[in-house]
Amino acid sequence: MDLNFIQKLVKKSDTKIVLLILDGIGGLPRKSDNKTELEAAHTPNFDELASHGICGLHIPVNPGITPGSGPGHLGVFGYDPIKYQVGRGVLAAHGIGFDLQKDDVAARGNFCTIDDQGKVVDRRAGRISTEKNMELCKLLGEIQIPGVEVFIKTVKEHRFLLVLRGEGLSGNLYDTDPQEIGVPSLKSKGFTNKEDRTVAIVNDFLEQAKALLTESHPANMVLLRGFSQKPDWPSYEEAFGIKSAAIAAYPMYRGLARLLGMELLETGTTIQDEFSTLEENWNGFDFFFIHIKPTDSSGEDGDFDRKVRVIEEVDKEIPRLLALKPDVILVTGDHSTPASMKKHSWHPVPTIIWSELCRPDNVKSFGERACISGGLGPRIPAVDLIPLALANAQRLEKFGA
Amino acid sequence: MDLNFIQKLVKKSDTKIVLLILDGIGGLPRKSDNKTELEAAHTPNFDELASHGICGLHIPVNPGITPGSGPGHLGVFGYDPIKYQVGRGVLAAHGIGFDLQKDDVAARGNFCTIDDQGKVVDRRAGRISTEKNMELCKLLGEIQIPGVEVFIKTVKEHRFLLVLRGEGLSGNLYDTDPQEIGVPSLKSKGFTNKEDRTVAIVNDFLEQAKALLTESHPANMVLLRGFSQKPDWPSYEEAFGIKSAAIAAYPMYRGLARLLGMELLETGTTIQDEFSTLEENWNGFDFFFIHIKPTDSSGEDGDFDRKVRVIEEVDKEIPRLLALKPDVILVTGDHSTPASMKKHSWHPVPTIIWSELCRPDNVKSFGERACISGGLGPRIPAVDLIPLALANAQRLEKFGA
Repeated sequence: MDLNFIQKLVKKSDTKIVLLILDGIGGLPRKSDNKTELEAAHTPNFDELASHGICGLHIPVNPGITPGSGPGHLGVFGYDPIKYQVGRGVLAAHGIGFDLQKDDVAARGNFCTIDDQGKVVDRRAGRISTEKNMELCKLLGEIQIPGVEVFIKTVKEHRFLLVLRGEGLSGNLYDTDPQEIGVPSLKSKGFTNKEDRTVAIVNDFLEQAKALLTESHPANMVLLRGFSQKPDWPSYEEAFGIKSAAIAAYPMYRGLARLLGMELLETGTTIQDEFSTLEENWNGFDFFFIHIKPTDSSGEDGDFDRKVRVIEEVDKEIPRLLALKPDVILVTGDHSTPASMKKHSWHPVPTIIWSELCRPDNVKSFGERACISGGLGPRIPAVDLIPLALANAQRLEKFGA
Repeated sequence: MDLNFIQKLVKKSDTKIVLLILDGIGGLPRKSDNKTELEAAHTPNFDELASHGICGLHIPVNPGITPGSGPGHLGVFGYDPIKYQVGRGVLAAHGIGFDLQKDDVAARGNFCTIDDQGKVVDRRAGRISTEKNMELCKLLGEIQIPGVEVFIKTVKEHRFLLVLRGEGLSGNLYDTDPQEIGVPSLKSKGFTNKEDRTVAIVNDFLEQAKALLTESHPANMVLLRGFSQKPDWPSYEEAFGIKSAAIAAYPMYRGLARLLGMELLETGTTIQDEFSTLEENWNGFDFFFIHIKPTDSSGEDGDFDRKVRVIEEVDKEIPRLLALKPDVILVTGDHSTPASMKKHSWHPVPTIIWSELCRPDNVKSFGERACISGGLGPRIPAVDLIPLALANAQRLEKFGA
C-alpha cells in the first residue's frame, strides 16, 4: 500500500501497538519428525495469541525473493522494500548512531590485506580486533581532502564507516571492494559523469589511506562499498502518526529504526533485557519494535535445536508483554532462516495479529502449516501488516463517504 | 484490475448476473457462542449457494482500510475505489436524480444554526423536517448570481443539494462546513488560484443565503461540503458491455448506480419489494444490483439480533431469485459493519460466486470463518469480483492467442 494513501487516513489515539520481530523465524521441517523449528518449539503463549488473533504468512518482498535484513524489516515496517531502498553506508552510519546530514555520502569500509602487487588476499584483514580498528581509524583521521570533511568511525572488528561531507557530493558510486581475492582493490567509479568530483575525492582518500596503512599489515588497505546518501523518507511519525521506539541490540536494526525516526532505547543483551526495556518505557510511546536476533543467528549456524530454544525463550516473555495490556500485538519475522539452509530464504513468514478487534480464524497454534489456513492467508504482502495493526488499534479514519 | 484491460475482452451474451449486496454484512463474533452475525443466522439458502459456488472474503479497498459506502460499492462494482473517487456533492445529486451536466459544480448542503456572533451551534439545525427543508429551498431559490444558474434541491431533513451551472467553474474547493460547533462557518476557499471565480460565486451564494434565512431560526445558515464535478468514468455498459439495473431504496446507493449509468428501478421499502422488482424487470436487463440496507443499519445500531434476522429475511428470498434462473449470482457486502463496533470496519467481507461454471471449493456454509478456506481465498480484492462474475457468465473473450 502507498504510504501517501495511508498517511491521509491516520488519526490519533491512545492505543499501543507492539511489533515483535523474531528475526528469521520461518523454517523448514527436520527429517526426524517433519516439524519446523517453530512447530517443534513448545509455545503455549504464542499458541494462545494465535487462537485469539488472526494468523497467516507474509511475503517479505515478492514471491521467491530472499530479503536481506534491510528490505525484510522495511517491508514489515510498512515501507515497500522495492521502493524504499537504502545503501549499506547509510545503514552503517545509522547503526553506530552517526548523525548523517542531508548531503553526506556514507560508505561501509573494510580493513583488508593486500600483497606486494596490490592484490587483495584477505577482504577482512584476518578480522582484526575492534581495538586495533580504533587505532587504525585514528591513523586515517590524518587524511585531508580540500573542500571535504572526512569522518572515519569504527564499527566492529574489520568494519568501519566512512562519511564524506561537502557540497555537491553524490552517492552514485560503484564499490571499490572487488568481492573476491587475488585481484586488486578497485578504484572509484561513478554511475555517470556527474559523480566525477566525488570519484576524485574517493580516489584521493584511497591513496592517502594506502600510504598511511603501509606498515599496518594485515590491515594495510581499505575496501569501500554501499556508497549512499540519507534518503528522504517519511518518518514513522509522519507516515503513521505514532510515536515509536525500537528495542534492538544489534547496530544494523538500530540503524534501520533510526532511519525511520524511531527512538532507540538502550537495552541489554538478553531477550529478558529487551522485555524489561519494554516495561520501563511502556508509558512513553505508542509503538514498540522489539527485535530478537538469535532466531536468525541460530538458523544461520544451522542449529535447529538452538533456534527452537530461542523461540521457547521468547514465548516465555509473552505474559510480561500481555501484562502491559497492549491493544495490538504483531508477531512475525523479517524473513525465514531455515536451519537446514543456514541462510535467509524466500519462504513466507508466520504471522499473528492479536487484538480485541481481530476477527479470529480457526488457527490454534503458531506454526508454518497452521498459519496457512489463517485469516491473513498464506501470502499476505509484508507491507500490509502495519496498516492492519493500525486498523486494529483504531488509528485509521474511514476512507470516503 | 484495470477497466481498460477488461473492456477490451468484453463480449455480448444473453446471460444474466445478479449482484446481491448485503450492506455491511461482515461482522465479529459475539461473546456468548463466538459466532458472528452471519454465522449465527440460519441461512439454508445461502449455505446451498455456498456449497455449489466458490467462496472467500474480499478486501474492499486495501488491507486495514475501512471504506465509506461510496468506495465500498465502487470496489465491488469493479471500479478501483482509490482511482475512482467521487465527491459527496456529485453523489447527492445522483441520489435525488438530479441530471448533472458536464461542468456543473455540486455540493452537499446542510441547514445549520448559527448564533448572534455567526458561530455554528448546531450543524444540522435540529434536524428540521423535510417539509421545512422544501420551504427553505424555495426561499433560497430567490438567489441570483450573474453568469451562473443556481439549483437548490431538498434531499432529506436538514440536507440539500446545491448545483452551480456556468462556464469555467471548478469543484476544487474546500468545505465551508467547519465540522465542529462553537466556531464560525467558513468562507469558500479554493485548492489553488484557479478557483478564484468559483470561490467568489460561492461566497456570494453564502451571503445571500444568510440574508434570506435570517428569520428562519433554527435553520438560519447553510454549510456546504463535498464540492465536486461529474466524473468522466466509463459507464457499466461501456466497461462491461452489460445493460444494468439497480434495485436500491436509499438515495446514496441509487446515486452511485446512476453515476455508473445503471438504470434505477422504482421499488418499495421492504426486502420482499426489492425481489418483486427484480422479478418484474427480469427480462429487461443483463445485470441487476440489489442493495439490502438493513444489514448495515442494524450493525450500526449495535443490534446483533436484528442483523441476524435481516440476514435470515434475505435468505428466505433466495428461492425467488433462483426461480428466475440467473446464470451468475454474486452475494457479498460493500464492507463489514460488526454490531459490536457499531460502525463500518476494515474486516474482509464474506463472498459467494455461484454459477454452473464455478469450480466449487469445500465451503458448505456462508460465514466469515467458513469462507477463509474458500477458493476465492481470504483476501481477494473487491475489484476482482465483477471480472470473475463476467467470466462465469461467459462474457469475456480469451486474452491473447
